[in-house]
Amino acid sequence: MGEAGSHVEGSRLDPWVDSYATRAKNLSASAIRALFAVASRPEVVSLAGGMPYVQALSMDDMADIAAQVVRDRGPQALQYGSGQGDVSLREQILDVTAEVGVHAHPDDIVVTTGSQMALDLVTRTFCDPGDVVLVESPSYVGALGVFRSYECDVVHVAMDDDGLIPEALQQAIDAARAAGKNVKLIYTIPSFHNPAGVTQPAHRRAQILEIAQRAGIAVLEDDPYGLLGFEGEPPRALRADDDQGVIYLGSFSKTIASGLRVGWAIAPHGVREKLVLAAEAATLCPSNYAQLTVSQYLATQPWREQIKSFQEVYRERRDAMLESLQAMMPAGTTWTIPAGGFYTWVTLPEGLDATAMLPRAITELVAYVPGTGFFVDGQGTANMRLSYCYPDPDRIREGVRRLSTVVEAELEIARTFGTAAGTPGSLSGSGESSTPAPDLA
Amino acid sequence: MGEAGSHVEGSRLDPWVDSYATRAKNLSASAIRALFAVASRPEVVSLAGGMPYVQALSMDDMADIAAQVVRDRGPQALQYGSGQGDVSLREQILDVTAEVGVHAHPDDIVVTTGSQMALDLVTRTFCDPGDVVLVESPSYVGALGVFRSYECDVVHVAMDDDGLIPEALQQAIDAARAAGKNVKLIYTIPSFHNPAGVTQPAHRRAQILEIAQRAGIAVLEDDPYGLLGFEGEPPRALRADDDQGVIYLGSFSKTIASGLRVGWAIAPHGVREKLVLAAEAATLCPSNYAQLTVSQYLATQPWREQIKSFQEVYRERRDAMLESLQAMMPAGTTWTIPAGGFYTWVTLPEGLDATAMLPRAITELVAYVPGTGFFVDGQGTANMRLSYCYPDPDRIREGVRRLSTVVEAELEIARTFGTAAGTPGSLSGSGESSTPAPDLA
Repeated sequence: MGEAGSHVEGSRLDPWVDSYATRAKNLSASAIRALFAVASRPEVVSLAGGMPYVQALSMDDMADIAAQVVRDRGPQALQYGSGQGDVSLREQILDVTAEVGVHAHPDDIVVTTGSQMALDLVTRTFCDPGDVVLVESPSYVGALGVFRSYECDVVHVAMDDDGLIPEALQQAIDAARAAGKNVKLIYTIPSFHNPAGVTQPAHRRAQILEIAQRAGIAVLEDDPYGLLGFEGEPPRALRADDDQGVIYLGSFSKTIASGLRVGWAIAPHGVREKLVLAAEAATLCPSNYAQLTVSQYLATQPWREQIKSFQEVYRERRDAMLESLQAMMPAGTTWTIPAGGFYTWVTLPEGLDATAMLPRAITELVAYVPGTGFFVDGQGTANMRLSYCYPDPDRIREGVRRLSTVVEAELEIARTFGTAAGTPGSLSGSGESSTPAPDLA
Repeated sequence: MGEAGSHVEGSRLDPWVDSYATRAKNLSASAIRALFAVASRPEVVSLAGGMPYVQALSMDDMADIAAQVVRDRGPQALQYGSGQGDVSLREQILDVTAEVGVHAHPDDIVVTTGSQMALDLVTRTFCDPGDVVLVESPSYVGALGVFRSYECDVVHVAMDDDGLIPEALQQAIDAARAAGKNVKLIYTIPSFHNPAGVTQPAHRRAQILEIAQRAGIAVLEDDPYGLLGFEGEPPRALRADDDQGVIYLGSFSKTIASGLRVGWAIAPHGVREKLVLAAEAATLCPSNYAQLTVSQYLATQPWREQIKSFQEVYRERRDAMLESLQAMMPAGTTWTIPAGGFYTWVTLPEGLDATAMLPRAITELVAYVPGTGFFVDGQGTANMRLSYCYPDPDRIREGVRRLSTVVEAELEIARTFGTAAGTPGSLSGSGESSTPAPDLA
């Protein structure tokens, strides 16, 4: 860790340190990042990353598509385009969102450089410093980073195995308002949650919408995994039942390829106008090259079949992970049962600290993301996010086997000394959420 | 204009209007945008847009490159990558910046979704609301939009035919500080200025650097056109002589293709760390697909020869524009003589208003950008930016011919009525700079 640690923020003199904006203070590299630099060696089984398995695509087909786009529409693909995004692609996006019940006009869509950029634009449009954003417990690390970078007051709301708890949401709104706070957004990932691995059932979605509508607070629905369910039809999006109160974020990162960086927001008219203007200030326009590649892919490839094949890949990996956890994890360890998406959320036995345990895990050649990264308030010490999206089933089994020996060893220490190892130099748990490394997203 | 006008911000009810952040009030669509929607018909000669002539590239070669990238490196090209950008591309970028004397370590570079995004990240990192950013008179509309969107206090500093005037810069710093303001950035486009068409000579660059260093203010050097000069060697960048005080922005939008959206910032170490964290919050990572395409292009194509061929295209067009202006514009009209880049800055005869004149010009099937768009304070009423980058020489001559008849007619009205036509419904000049349409960049 010494090597990586020397690159952590603040370790060199910075003559501009007094010139930064207040919001820049919320941008700091975490010690965990440095650790992951060490953990990227090939011998480490990473259950940490959120990288989709793009190798499932036919690279020959993708290469042909890329060439066609340039050969047939080069002067458009290589040129500036609309700040709102290519209009043909916006029409095609509606074919995709129809799968989760979302119907809109192409004019309601803003294409962005991944849906991370849409998160940024929505926050920039809605949130002054100190405004409250309600988020799940835990929540997506990349969203927490955005909210913090705009100096929002991020408030966690409890979840259970059915996701965000409506009563807790109502209480959080009441409490924030009683404290004189301005609640601007309810940020939720209703389907195949990152990192919690849970999904809101339909009745709960209706309750959440009703609470938001009654309170007059916009819902920011983040749905990158909605089409990656393992059984039955995709869950119906919140936006499908409220076109004025919900801002819907989608992405091709998990259904086609993350390296294209093509995502989108669907928003009520006035919000959409603001988002386009904010997008033009942020990047002028999304890449026509990437957009037309997606458009050509959707027009010429059996994309629904490809999504089915992604579902099968990920279901097999989910099964490998759940079976291994069941077979190998010490008693007292629990985890969520994801019905789709990339992640399961593990709770360690009483007394163990997932952040403190990480260096030992990496020594044992397995990596995960400690739970504290998904909170802004130090919760999550007993949790870890395990990803099954990228390694193959054998690697997953080997990773869980290594992890189980680490947990066993920590338990042994706890039994011997009465507490888990908080050795000098162990990682501090709080405040790690500000900056997602891209491969952890 | 009735049609387009009905889409202008605020004309429909927006239930979320009270929920927006303060900064979102600075995001508003200008009436000029609506007018340009009308002006995009093919029969209009547009001297307004800043679109590079990407048709000069071999589309067959570009198609082969795109296919090679996916076929040979698909699992990387289609995957998430580093938030800082691909390390091989960062090394290649240094070959390009060496042409303007900029040498650095690949670790000093952040790759961004066009250099517009780098402008956004630098502003987000440095500027709290009310902080002063010093900009040229006129300045790039897209930069003004970013500065305004972060609620900066934008202060214009006078230019002459040699660009930013050092004495005026010193006075502006002194005046802002005397008023208790925090001056955070000096934003300058030293080479082939957009929109002014002028270039700082070497001695003036040295003076500007010295003033900035003495004042302890960071220089934000925007250099998208530096390699597109028409005579001799490219101007030496400010960053070439100050690696600690200058943040350098570059772009492949004009030297390869704008549709790829690949730009970069080179910054001092501490600033670069902040920019990477801000970039990850903004988009997670730049597109590997676009980055590897650029990387493959630079590795396999004679890119210096291609830039030479772009220079020749643009020089021929610049010559067509300057000769037409000389031959056709009424006495009293003046313009700058660009030695590179895309633009000339025209000053109309006494009493004419370029904003008020625009609807008449579009009726005569020629378009330009009125000068007020390049100021935040209502200056520029007598100016217009003319672009010669996209139309071919014959179209440029025809455009200038049409424009000269419009100016003649306005002069005739001014002579008859003692003032230029400020007809009811004419466009208001001030505050148009907040939002660049991408094709006006």
